[in-house]
Amino acid sequence: MEMDTIAAISTPMGEGAIGIVRISGDQAVAIADIVYKGTKSLQDVDTHTINYGHIVDPKSGDTIEEVMVSVLRAPKTYTKEDIIEINCHGGLISVNRVLQLILSHGARLAEPGEFTKRAFLHGRIDLSQAEAVMDLIRAKTDRAMNVAINQVEGKLSQRIQTLRQSLLETVASVEVNIDYPEYDAEEMTLELIKERGSEVREGIERLLLTAHQGKILREGLSTVIIGRPNVGKSSLLNSLVHENKAIVTDIPGTTRDVIEEYVNVRGVPLKLLDTAGIRETEDIVERLGVERSRKLVNEAELVLLVLNYNEELSDADRELFELVSSNDMIVIVNKVDLEQRLDLSRVQELAGRNPVVSTSLLQDEGVDELEEAIRALFFEGDLDAGDMSYVSNSRHIALLQQAKQAIEDALEATHGGMPIDMVQIDITKAWELLGEVIGDTVQESLIDQLFSQFCLGK
Amino acid sequence: MEMDTIAAISTPMGEGAIGIVRISGDQAVAIADIVYKGTKSLQDVDTHTINYGHIVDPKSGDTIEEVMVSVLRAPKTYTKEDIIEINCHGGLISVNRVLQLILSHGARLAEPGEFTKRAFLHGRIDLSQAEAVMDLIRAKTDRAMNVAINQVEGKLSQRIQTLRQSLLETVASVEVNIDYPEYDAEEMTLELIKERGSEVREGIERLLLTAHQGKILREGLSTVIIGRPNVGKSSLLNSLVHENKAIVTDIPGTTRDVIEEYVNVRGVPLKLLDTAGIRETEDIVERLGVERSRKLVNEAELVLLVLNYNEELSDADRELFELVSSNDMIVIVNKVDLEQRLDLSRVQELAGRNPVVSTSLLQDEGVDELEEAIRALFFEGDLDAGDMSYVSNSRHIALLQQAKQAIEDALEATHGGMPIDMVQIDITKAWELLGEVIGDTVQESLIDQLFSQFCLGK
Repeated sequence: MEMDTIAAISTPMGEGAIGIVRISGDQAVAIADIVYKGTKSLQDVDTHTINYGHIVDPKSGDTIEEVMVSVLRAPKTYTKEDIIEINCHGGLISVNRVLQLILSHGARLAEPGEFTKRAFLHGRIDLSQAEAVMDLIRAKTDRAMNVAINQVEGKLSQRIQTLRQSLLETVASVEVNIDYPEYDAEEMTLELIKERGSEVREGIERLLLTAHQGKILREGLSTVIIGRPNVGKSSLLNSLVHENKAIVTDIPGTTRDVIEEYVNVRGVPLKLLDTAGIRETEDIVERLGVERSRKLVNEAELVLLVLNYNEELSDADRELFELVSSNDMIVIVNKVDLEQRLDLSRVQELAGRNPVVSTSLLQDEGVDELEEAIRALFFEGDLDAGDMSYVSNSRHIALLQQAKQAIEDALEATHGGMPIDMVQIDITKAWELLGEVIGDTVQESLIDQLFSQFCLGK
Repeated sequence: MEMDTIAAISTPMGEGAIGIVRISGDQAVAIADIVYKGTKSLQDVDTHTINYGHIVDPKSGDTIEEVMVSVLRAPKTYTKEDIIEINCHGGLISVNRVLQLILSHGARLAEPGEFTKRAFLHGRIDLSQAEAVMDLIRAKTDRAMNVAINQVEGKLSQRIQTLRQSLLETVASVEVNIDYPEYDAEEMTLELIKERGSEVREGIERLLLTAHQGKILREGLSTVIIGRPNVGKSSLLNSLVHENKAIVTDIPGTTRDVIEEYVNVRGVPLKLLDTAGIRETEDIVERLGVERSRKLVNEAELVLLVLNYNEELSDADRELFELVSSNDMIVIVNKVDLEQRLDLSRVQELAGRNPVVSTSLLQDEGVDELEEAIRALFFEGDLDAGDMSYVSNSRHIALLQQAKQAIEDALEATHGGMPIDMVQIDITKAWELLGEVIGDTVQESLIDQLFSQFCLGK
């Protein structure tokens, strides 16, 4: 596999103490050496060493940065290629200038995810591990991180491999049956397909059972706060954001119009939608019409519907209840420190099986109960933070569902008396679909597309 | 000097390929070893090596991260202490968990700038070099970065040291004169004070000459775009932001209300004020009243006043001209692709000695001329990008001005026939003031305050 030498800034953009320019490829050490001045040439130092020196523009002689250069020679590196990491003081401009200098001496700017892609192409990790690297970076809570790190370590890969192995053995057995029909083992083969097929289906089902929670852990639970003006929406927002550490907000370079805020509520990463809207419009009645709420509710996986304990239920409240009838919802009866004017039994009736929590957000009361309700809604029962094999990636979920379908087709065919080589096609398809999860049987265009979603420098 | 072991995240907050937890102090290696699992104990590896392994929570046995750990033993390190850098995959959550683990095993969370403070306290760098480290991180343009890196390298320190040495010799000579009056060297000593004093004063003046530009390079030139509605303010803003790389915008964790955008216009870092206002209010006439402009203009060092070539000069335009009469200003006559209705000679008259540039921003015409006008306004004449000894830090500028005053007092005293030991007091004062620049004669509280402005992990 012939590959050129690539380079990129591998630390987040922003002011920080350390900025890193990473170079990978055959020429990594040679290129770095052109711009590096230290006591020794980088060509002469041992692998896995850190070397103090300066980056100097060879044309102008200008010192660009005081640096520590890590030299990591293949194959024990992230990409399995020679890697240089230039550790700079961390300014945007200086890290950029170091990168520019490297690029002007023979390296090519890496595409997003290209370092990890090389790790995949060189066979160091499989596709599900590569994808988990990005999940690890984007993890919003500890649980999400645990899922990702275990996937990086190959736990999901192992389970997929086991399922595939089982299917492969079945296919092999079918082949024997087709090639040597004289053995008359058809009955036995059908039995084997039924038995193994059911086992694999169950294995896939167990994985898929975790998918809903896994996906929420990975992507956050899109949540919207609705309610009439002055019921306390922005108090609720502030309460959620301040009580819990807000995770990521703006990332430089993304558009400012859409502000997503993530908060970690007892392990549930809430992705709060339209928080800017709430901040702006609390007292602009007309802008918070039902039309706008409808749009938001459609996007949301969880609705927090806020009511005022101090006011009677209005038509607008009832309209909001109707709007969210098909959503997961928590009803928050706020301002319980004021006089009761709200008919709570009516509220409970409208809420149906959804939880109702009473709060006085201004006095910081009821917030614990609310957080517990959010947690319980999504992690009730048997979710074990230690059970790491659950699936969180939409692509994996889709492939598992298709694989499950293929196996069900095979099982049905065995009952329907279809020729055994037709059954084999379904089993092989399931085997291939599972292979796509780990990248064994995946197309190049898909690989390109997957890695393009990575961040730069990874 | 007894110091505990400190730790912090040293990469910017955000999603990136690499996140680094840095530990410094006697216990750095021992603490890291508690949570690190690799082929060797970190205690047993050589200094300046990179070690692959995992961070494992010793209590739960959970794997937290796959990492590369750099071991750097004192004294050849940033702080002159043992340093460990744990290089993680770069997720906020996982980097944070690694930090928490380190903190729960005996390290203390570092204060902002504490690593650099230790480099200063251990005598590896002086105060002006330490301050330049932060300037380097915050540099908005190449020129600003060049100034900072040269200051990190000690160029300013050397010039200050030379001036101080000269003053010290003068003081010594005065001492001789006081202690051995029989030599009757008073006349000679006075001559020496005059000669050396003048030299040092000139040296300080040369440094101060660079201060205005240095400060702009360091802090950005606060710039405001004003003009009546629909003259093209947001086109101008977009043009400046898009033609030039916008530098830093939001930094996570800072308030969202004040959005500052920096653009690098030919080496001049413009700090654009109220860009959110311009984006919002282009078509909301009443919000762009003179009152609001007045407030902005007061904060600005440069005003870009936009006029419409297609409209006659209005009273509002004339009011704006009055408003900015005491500012540096560039007048931009926009929409020259449309029919002329503006009296250009009248505009030139109102603009006085300030440049007038014609543009058609929608057709991308005249932008080069505008950028050249901005550059010329601040880098006209003899500013040499290679001359690195100029001063950019307000604290340094104030100290240099005070030192210059003290020397002038001394020189005046020599003429006024003051007793020579009075003259000596002024010279000594100047020597001390220059010492404060490099941290030789500086108070602890000031040191604490200076380093607290650093970013975390540096």
